[in-house]
Amino acid sequence: MTKVLNSPERFSDEAVDGLVSVYADYLEKTYGGVISTRSTRPGKVAVVIGGGSGHYPAFAGWVGPGLADGAVVGNIFASPSTQQIYAVAKAVDDGAGVFMSYGNYAGDVLNFNLAEEQLSEEGIRAISVPVTDDVSSASLDERDKRRGVAGDLVVFKIAGAAAERGNDLDGVVAAAQRANAATYSFGVAFAGCTLPGADEPLFTVPEGQMGVGLGVHGEPGVAEVPLEPSADLAKRLVDRLLQERPEGASGRVAVLLNGLGGSKYEELFVLWNDVRQLLEAAELEIVRPEVGELITSLDMAGVSLTVTWLDDELEQLWLAPADTPAFRRGAAPEGRAVHRAVTEAEQQEFGQASEQSQALARRLADGLEAVAALLHDKESELGDLDAIAGDGDHGRGMTKGCDAALAAAQAAVSAGAGLASTLSAAGIAWADKAGGTSGALWGNGLRQAATALDDESEPTTEQGLAAVQAALELVTTFGKAKRHDKTLLDALIPFVEALQESVVAGDAMPKAWPAAAEVATTEAEATADLSPKIGRSRVLAERSQGHPDPGAISLAMILTVAGEHLG
Amino acid sequence: MTKVLNSPERFSDEAVDGLVSVYADYLEKTYGGVISTRSTRPGKVAVVIGGGSGHYPAFAGWVGPGLADGAVVGNIFASPSTQQIYAVAKAVDDGAGVFMSYGNYAGDVLNFNLAEEQLSEEGIRAISVPVTDDVSSASLDERDKRRGVAGDLVVFKIAGAAAERGNDLDGVVAAAQRANAATYSFGVAFAGCTLPGADEPLFTVPEGQMGVGLGVHGEPGVAEVPLEPSADLAKRLVDRLLQERPEGASGRVAVLLNGLGGSKYEELFVLWNDVRQLLEAAELEIVRPEVGELITSLDMAGVSLTVTWLDDELEQLWLAPADTPAFRRGAAPEGRAVHRAVTEAEQQEFGQASEQSQALARRLADGLEAVAALLHDKESELGDLDAIAGDGDHGRGMTKGCDAALAAAQAAVSAGAGLASTLSAAGIAWADKAGGTSGALWGNGLRQAATALDDESEPTTEQGLAAVQAALELVTTFGKAKRHDKTLLDALIPFVEALQESVVAGDAMPKAWPAAAEVATTEAEATADLSPKIGRSRVLAERSQGHPDPGAISLAMILTVAGEHLG
Repeated sequence: MTKVLNSPERFSDEAVDGLVSVYADYLEKTYGGVISTRSTRPGKVAVVIGGGSGHYPAFAGWVGPGLADGAVVGNIFASPSTQQIYAVAKAVDDGAGVFMSYGNYAGDVLNFNLAEEQLSEEGIRAISVPVTDDVSSASLDERDKRRGVAGDLVVFKIAGAAAERGNDLDGVVAAAQRANAATYSFGVAFAGCTLPGADEPLFTVPEGQMGVGLGVHGEPGVAEVPLEPSADLAKRLVDRLLQERPEGASGRVAVLLNGLGGSKYEELFVLWNDVRQLLEAAELEIVRPEVGELITSLDMAGVSLTVTWLDDELEQLWLAPADTPAFRRGAAPEGRAVHRAVTEAEQQEFGQASEQSQALARRLADGLEAVAALLHDKESELGDLDAIAGDGDHGRGMTKGCDAALAAAQAAVSAGAGLASTLSAAGIAWADKAGGTSGALWGNGLRQAATALDDESEPTTEQGLAAVQAALELVTTFGKAKRHDKTLLDALIPFVEALQESVVAGDAMPKAWPAAAEVATTEAEATADLSPKIGRSRVLAERSQGHPDPGAISLAMILTVAGEHLG
Repeated sequence: MTKVLNSPERFSDEAVDGLVSVYADYLEKTYGGVISTRSTRPGKVAVVIGGGSGHYPAFAGWVGPGLADGAVVGNIFASPSTQQIYAVAKAVDDGAGVFMSYGNYAGDVLNFNLAEEQLSEEGIRAISVPVTDDVSSASLDERDKRRGVAGDLVVFKIAGAAAERGNDLDGVVAAAQRANAATYSFGVAFAGCTLPGADEPLFTVPEGQMGVGLGVHGEPGVAEVPLEPSADLAKRLVDRLLQERPEGASGRVAVLLNGLGGSKYEELFVLWNDVRQLLEAAELEIVRPEVGELITSLDMAGVSLTVTWLDDELEQLWLAPADTPAFRRGAAPEGRAVHRAVTEAEQQEFGQASEQSQALARRLADGLEAVAALLHDKESELGDLDAIAGDGDHGRGMTKGCDAALAAAQAAVSAGAGLASTLSAAGIAWADKAGGTSGALWGNGLRQAATALDDESEPTTEQGLAAVQAALELVTTFGKAKRHDKTLLDALIPFVEALQESVVAGDAMPKAWPAAAEVATTEAEATADLSPKIGRSRVLAERSQGHPDPGAISLAMILTVAGEHLG
């Protein structure tokens, strides 16, 4: 039961403040997470890890020489935003590119991919490798759909050591991919965890039972079975992992026995005593095992076993020195002090802008104000629509995102920013604060639109069209949905097509946009006839029949209001 | 909830096996606990720490250069036995004496004091300092009655550093005493812990409340109060500790924020963020804080704050390097490999004995067999008697102790041991396996009696009397009770007095002993008229009125049976 907090909203942030104050010799707070105060040498590939909070020592406890240069810290069990990832990566990049890694969850994949894109636009090469070690979450055939759990540590450690010894970015990526391919985890849960501020656990395990294969955020497991003695549990874990022993694997293994928070040290040592004997009986050589709390899930009770099949190179990297708050090994690489943290405010610095463009930026801020007012007005309506077949937070997420975008746009205008910079700042803020997939797509879509504009002159009609097309392309690329999947694309694609047609026909924006917005509204309402294709169960799909998609509806509303502020 | 185990009886031992296998580069298992595989230099004062299991990383996680040379590992929440402490201390002694430290609980005090005595008999100088940091457990006036909780770590660390820098035993003791006097802890509990094998928690905290001042084994707290925000909890903890700021204290403090097992890292960091601000507002300078799980209590949810008021020397020792599985600091002192572990079997090696003495040893073993049979017969009767005003385990404890003593005596006889060695082995085994205060006193009393005998000739009557007197003296010295306190002394003292009187009058043992045993029986029954004076509440004292003391009764029974086997 999580009992110590001031407020659920501030929990992650205050935890980071406390952490960096305890480990001031290792860590510095930066916008988006924490970075190392020490770097081993100029020109090293930077290593960035991250994910949601609630898993300490994952991820912020593993920042230091020989492991990661920075960790991105999301809210409890939630992916960090694109902007957080971008900011941490930028803070630690030293010219040789940024390697990024994280557990394979949809939100993290989306945001890390978007951050890669954003970094590459600035000429920073960034490549991320998601960790997929959890054997319970998909079959071996669908290896890339597996979740990342405690195996994160092995992949991060090996990548960190590869960067430390001087590999270039491609070399670090290759080492991480090989480490991930060699890493397998399997776990059981005895009791659920409670989110900060919640009165009830996120899930429960029936008395006398254990949940087999549960995820680290309470994702459903494979089965519930009766509790069993440590020796039997050890056999269950070891047998399952040995089933997937890769062909040609050497007999040497790195092994982690992870406690999820509520299963304590002596229990882990008792279980380890049994696991070790079974691994030795299988004629495996255990290389530097780690037994303890590595990736926790708040106060969840449970354990997981991880095996990495080592070859000579992976073994060398696994054993290389590292020195971080929560993971140390051997003689640590010598570190020199560095300072490169940035505050949230410093994230927003604007270049020169023409007076004309500043005036347009003000109009943009006014338009956003009207959109924000609209969204507040429609918040509960959109929420109700979303609740029919979703989690009912669409209205809240859109409002939060737009409020943040408005505040950022107003701040940018006050700082003298031009149109493109203001729109970009608004998009970044939207993605950073709205949360969820739609927040990430909306915010990054707006930021992407800004790349077609500038801070000098009034956009041409072609530039306006290009901006909208850029946004669409981003949403299509990263949203992984297609038309007729019952998403906002069902309004956005017809809007862009209609806008393009009018522009090609010679219409100016103030005429073309409202007409296209009308098309979008019609199409949004027509989503009532569609079935959702992505990430919904059959039950929810049936429930949504006859109701339009809330994301398409809100998009159409916003396009309509935006049209009223053009020209 | 403790869920991973094979059996409650083997839990602690299997946990040690697992621990030393994970940290084979630091730890070696020895009879009684674990010892460091590395020593920094010959002739260093050895540092031994210890206590019950269930508190990891306390205590076995803190063995290594710069901290402890060995840790004694008792059963879950139970003091290690005298023999365990003796064995670990002997294994690490390097000729400069042994410093020992532990949390201040009656069972630990008794067994560490007895071990000191036993070591000094072999010419090994050993001095122990109990830690008394828990402000909730007694007033400042009765400082030496306070329990030891997380402050253990500070005292151990400072003592370890003093030994490392070359202080002699008195110097290490002085540093530890000064560290203890400067250390204050205060904690709260949110939820209880379950013992391995138990279905229910050891204690519970009502929903929405927290227990203030609870001990690390569920000892009663000062009050129950509603849960409060982290900032208020921080103020509660800091304010209470600052109340006892010693006069003339510098403004520099070592600070520990300890999680008891179920309160997780991010919660601790959130709380630390508040604690830090309050300490800084009080103009204190925080020196190298430690925030994490330091002394756990299985899966108990709760936190404690510890402050040590530093002077220059304590600060230097607190900051000195150390390298152990669970606590590392700075550049660790260079260690050289050492091997000095002993097995339980190696503990028992016997010197030469005469045939006559071997025959007497066999008679002793036969006598113990008769006593064991008697105790099995009376086990539930003694248990019922104890349950009137105690925990009802007296019969069980005596039976376990005597069974172990019998087995040890039989093994000694098979190995050709004489009378004194056999009695000593029996006593050691009794103390080692019986548990509890009475087990420690019975076993060590028998061992002490053996010092008046030898392995050569049949004991004279005077030797027999001296043996009994030696046992009485040990029980009086370490049991801290007086006659008429309603303990076994109320039978033992009259027995020894009567025996002495008969011997002085010229009676031989076979006549004097049974007569004295009759006196003991009468006096044991007369304890029904007494009130217990030690460690019992008024309610229990009243409840025991009219019932004799089970310890006195069992002693009288045993003396009677023993008399039948003399001569």
